[in-house]
Amino acid sequence: MEKHTHTFHYNKPFELESGEYLPGFQLRYTLFGKLNADRSNVVWVCHALTGNSDFTSWWKELFGPGAAFDPQHYLIVCANTLGGCYGSTGPLSVNPETGKPFYHSFPTITNRDIVRAFDLLRQSLEFEKIHTLIGGSLGGQHVLEWAIQQHELFEHIVPIACNAYHSPWGIAFNEAQRLAIQADPTWKENHERAGLEGLKAARAIAMLSYRNYDSYAEAQLEKSTEKIDDFRAATYQQYQGEKLALRFNTFTYWVLSKAMDSHNIARGRKNVLLALQSILAKALVVGVDDDVLFPIQEQKFLADNILKSSLITLQSKHGHDGFLIEFDQLNTGLKKFLNKKQEVYC
Amino acid sequence: MEKHTHTFHYNKPFELESGEYLPGFQLRYTLFGKLNADRSNVVWVCHALTGNSDFTSWWKELFGPGAAFDPQHYLIVCANTLGGCYGSTGPLSVNPETGKPFYHSFPTITNRDIVRAFDLLRQSLEFEKIHTLIGGSLGGQHVLEWAIQQHELFEHIVPIACNAYHSPWGIAFNEAQRLAIQADPTWKENHERAGLEGLKAARAIAMLSYRNYDSYAEAQLEKSTEKIDDFRAATYQQYQGEKLALRFNTFTYWVLSKAMDSHNIARGRKNVLLALQSILAKALVVGVDDDVLFPIQEQKFLADNILKSSLITLQSKHGHDGFLIEFDQLNTGLKKFLNKKQEVYC
Repeated sequence: MEKHTHTFHYNKPFELESGEYLPGFQLRYTLFGKLNADRSNVVWVCHALTGNSDFTSWWKELFGPGAAFDPQHYLIVCANTLGGCYGSTGPLSVNPETGKPFYHSFPTITNRDIVRAFDLLRQSLEFEKIHTLIGGSLGGQHVLEWAIQQHELFEHIVPIACNAYHSPWGIAFNEAQRLAIQADPTWKENHERAGLEGLKAARAIAMLSYRNYDSYAEAQLEKSTEKIDDFRAATYQQYQGEKLALRFNTFTYWVLSKAMDSHNIARGRKNVLLALQSILAKALVVGVDDDVLFPIQEQKFLADNILKSSLITLQSKHGHDGFLIEFDQLNTGLKKFLNKKQEVYC
Repeated sequence: MEKHTHTFHYNKPFELESGEYLPGFQLRYTLFGKLNADRSNVVWVCHALTGNSDFTSWWKELFGPGAAFDPQHYLIVCANTLGGCYGSTGPLSVNPETGKPFYHSFPTITNRDIVRAFDLLRQSLEFEKIHTLIGGSLGGQHVLEWAIQQHELFEHIVPIACNAYHSPWGIAFNEAQRLAIQADPTWKENHERAGLEGLKAARAIAMLSYRNYDSYAEAQLEKSTEKIDDFRAATYQQYQGEKLALRFNTFTYWVLSKAMDSHNIARGRKNVLLALQSILAKALVVGVDDDVLFPIQEQKFLADNILKSSLITLQSKHGHDGFLIEFDQLNTGLKKFLNKKQEVYC
């Protein structure tokens, strides 16, 4: 069974929530598995902030023989988000109206815009039903938003390590990162490498929210008590920044962090409870204990208010990043959820 | 009762733990109250990272009639730390050997160096005994280090919201801040305002460790669900950065964050338990519940291993910053501790 990568082109103006518009867009997407005769076996994966459509490169253990989603039985789809830098239209794309890359002129996009773009791709693929929609972190926010926008489309949803609206704490973490980017004056420039020093610092900040006190204590503890400088924890922060700067760009990072801030399923919908209650899909809400960025109470709130939902908490020493690491627990929870015969939700 | 500010000059070379040396130094210090006849009523206050010797400007409620320390009964001393920017020798001071400010040539200093400088001031003031040594955060680290270096000097110590060695988590937070400073290329320059944009971002990062999820949720929650940008939590982060940049400089911030990283009472002392057990003073260890930067288990560890110690936990919705806010609980705990007739420690 092979993965295939395709590109969806939407050639009409695409109006954004901000009132601005994109003169069309493209989405890079990956397909893995085979559509069954009644087109009822589509699994859609939403990736996180720095992810891409090649979902088996970062979530391989969930997709294969014996895993929750075997491509022998499912057609699995993942699209690089609008605003992304892995093949979808984003700030480095050429604006057809000017013939030059957008860079700083790329408009503000929201999670709602991103999900509307996904849905246009979904329509073009003629999927009338999605068996399961799954994603973590920013991808989990996309899951929730989409399940509300198209509340009859999904049979199952799995929002992981996410929230109903992005918290002031989460926004403050993102803003600290954007301030670090702004401290780099090359960020004002219009080229691919603008703001890369700032991006490195931003990634180091983000790591603090992806991990936690205990995970740093375990992985970065000094072997000796004699040092007075150049500690492992500091080197680790530098390394994480350097690594991201090699594979990402500051524009997409900025745009998607703003999209994350904008996440609020209540916007234009009376209130957050009614928004959650409008979700008709069966939901498995997944949290990670000791998640600094999206604490478990946020997922409890989701599970308490989505009509057909249950909650599992991943036990992880890695904090938020546990959703990219605790595959055994995820597979077990997913299989139990998907094989549930009776609809008994707690 | 008036406060008085003085300057202590140490005119000999001062060797640092790094092997480097300062060609002498000065410490700005504040005195408040009156020394009694047997010189037994000295209270020494150690300030936090961005604090100064004018302790009643940031900890007023602990010093006055009815408070834990009434200047009618105590002589209270606080010195601006070595490396500081409020009157003590720091990176903006003129290096007498070159006639120019140190800036980037200011040597690496450790908490141990800082405490040795404090002790030279203490000797010059001819205090043979200190009734109480108290400080929070970086100041609490100074309390512990000093109480070990001079373990017969102090009758009581009050280390607040601090730790025995700075955690990998704390170092990672500091390094993320230093990466933000490095993203600002003016940081390479040699003038007072070098790296100020980076400092603003650094302060925004630090705020995340001084507060917590709940405090942001309470203070920075949006009144409306309709916004898609310019959130209060983001504005708050910008504001905190701007505010610090008006009263501080990046050099001192860098130097003291490195001193904090260097904090390890075990260095050169067999192990951390023996180091703590060498403290002979009666200790009131104070923690704050939900302190992101110095979690309560760090203070439990201190209290469990200092021979004559008890622990109180401040209940605060402000996280780490609770030690600068929860005055009623602090005063109550301090008075109980200082008035204890029997030495019953738990």
